[in-house]
Amino acid sequence: MFTTDTLIRVRYAETDQMGVVYHSNFFPYFETARAESIRQLGFTYADMERMGVIMPVVDVHCRYLRPARYDDLLNIRTTLKELPQHHKIEFHHDVFNEKEELLATAKITLYFVEAGTMKKTSMPLQLQSRLQPYFS
Amino acid sequence: MFTTDTLIRVRYAETDQMGVVYHSNFFPYFETARAESIRQLGFTYADMERMGVIMPVVDVHCRYLRPARYDDLLNIRTTLKELPQHHKIEFHHDVFNEKEELLATAKITLYFVEAGTMKKTSMPLQLQSRLQPYFS
Amino acid sequence: MFTTDTLIRVRYAETDQMGVVYHSNFFPYFETARAESIRQLGFTYADMERMGVIMPVVDVHCRYLRPARYDDLLNIRTTLKELPQHHKIEFHHDVFNEKEELLATAKITLYFVEAGTMKKTSMPLQLQSRLQPYFS
Amino acid sequence: MFTTDTLIRVRYAETDQMGVVYHSNFFPYFETARAESIRQLGFTYADMERMGVIMPVVDVHCRYLRPARYDDLLNIRTTLKELPQHHKIEFHHDVFNEKEELLATAKITLYFVEAGTMKKTSMPLQLQSRLQPYFS
Repeated sequence: MFTTDTLIRVRYAETDQMGVVYHSNFFPYFETARAESIRQLGFTYADMERMGVIMPVVDVHCRYLRPARYDDLLNIRTTLKELPQHHKIEFHHDVFNEKEELLATAKITLYFVEAGTMKKTSMPLQLQSRLQPYFS
Repeated sequence: MFTTDTLIRVRYAETDQMGVVYHSNFFPYFETARAESIRQLGFTYADMERMGVIMPVVDVHCRYLRPARYDDLLNIRTTLKELPQHHKIEFHHDVFNEKEELLATAKITLYFVEAGTMKKTSMPLQLQSRLQPYFS
Repeated sequence: MFTTDTLIRVRYAETDQMGVVYHSNFFPYFETARAESIRQLGFTYADMERMGVIMPVVDVHCRYLRPARYDDLLNIRTTLKELPQHHKIEFHHDVFNEKEELLATAKITLYFVEAGTMKKTSMPLQLQSRLQPYFS
Repeated sequence: MFTTDTLIRVRYAETDQMGVVYHSNFFPYFETARAESIRQLGFTYADMERMGVIMPVVDVHCRYLRPARYDDLLNIRTTLKELPQHHKIEFHHDVFNEKEELLATAKITLYFVEAGTMKKTSMPLQLQSRLQPYFS
């Protein structure tokens, strides 16, 4: 298992007239948390794109339990439960506020795809070798 | 069953550097489609909020099959498969491009909530009476 | 002078916790209005990009006079006061609500740029020839 | 003069199909930088709203000099050149990338407004007293 925590401060722009974070604005938080998660391994998603591998999102599921509010400092806990096989990778995200209340929980599925051909590919070795130790 | 079609043109702002619509930008499309769906019944979500009932999103699930692109004229097909019971309502959305290719499919669950107390409530009668004929 | 009107319905996602449209969400409205303005000439911005000419925004100025609100049907009046010379084009936008109150007024400056080289270029002839009649 | 620096990492969601940050996505960066600027004084914008004073944006002007790109770590330099008089406050923002290139420069004008009455008011004393030392 590979888990990281990423802190994100809610922006005013992300609230709506209910006075809470608009539901879809959690997804850029998750994206940021995935990027930081990879960065912590000493690699970056930006590097991967420069190598010609992109990661389109193919499936999202998110449950909203409690509202996130303006200026909340959220903790996005990001977990890989399994070492990805083939072209598919699944991230789990749990969002906590400063009181450690669970606000939302999500599963995001992405594919590894060759940017040039748009064909499915497998996880670049640079990332795989860094992840391996967490799953043995 | 109650089904409506809503046309939405993809904005440049909604694309990302993959050259496609960023995944979370489909959710405001779904929200717009739900609002237009209710408007077609002769009622509006804005009316409902003015009556003190809000509809927070509590669960989203979306599968992305093909990319949506800048300037695409998308058709968001919105379906209520069942007349909502109690405080819960489930919308199904299918997104088609102009070639009638299915791009994405989603299920969005919302609650009816009293804005003042934040307590769950049931669908306002004004909406229920307009929906009833589609489910008998 | 070349002027067009574009109707845009405010989405819930575009409001903030002040209960009004967040200030930067007017810019995608302006972008949409510019695209519709060009479409009305029988050309599209998407066509222009496919021809290898892109139009980055280089300067924006917007004054906010009255708030736009959820579900407002806004009219974005878009005006070209002069036929663009060289690589520069200036659009003026006025935003009205259904009561015909002026909500905001903006000037957006863009450049014509060759996508390949990122060098400034002039307006494609396909657009120029369609605009010319409005300025003679 | 009161100046602060705020670091913001560009999110994928904020890019567009030109491969750069979409122009209006700089405004939430500026908003975040203003909030952090106030926080550094030992006060928060959230506190101010809880006290019943809101700060709607009434005028924005931004010039874009160079593109910001995905994963760039931007420095938003925020400056108050004058102690605000009456209901008006003007923030200047300069955006730098990691190479210390200037990407954009902006001036944002906001009003202090009483949330209840929507009447213009002056800067809360809690903020004024903390800013005063920087302007004498």
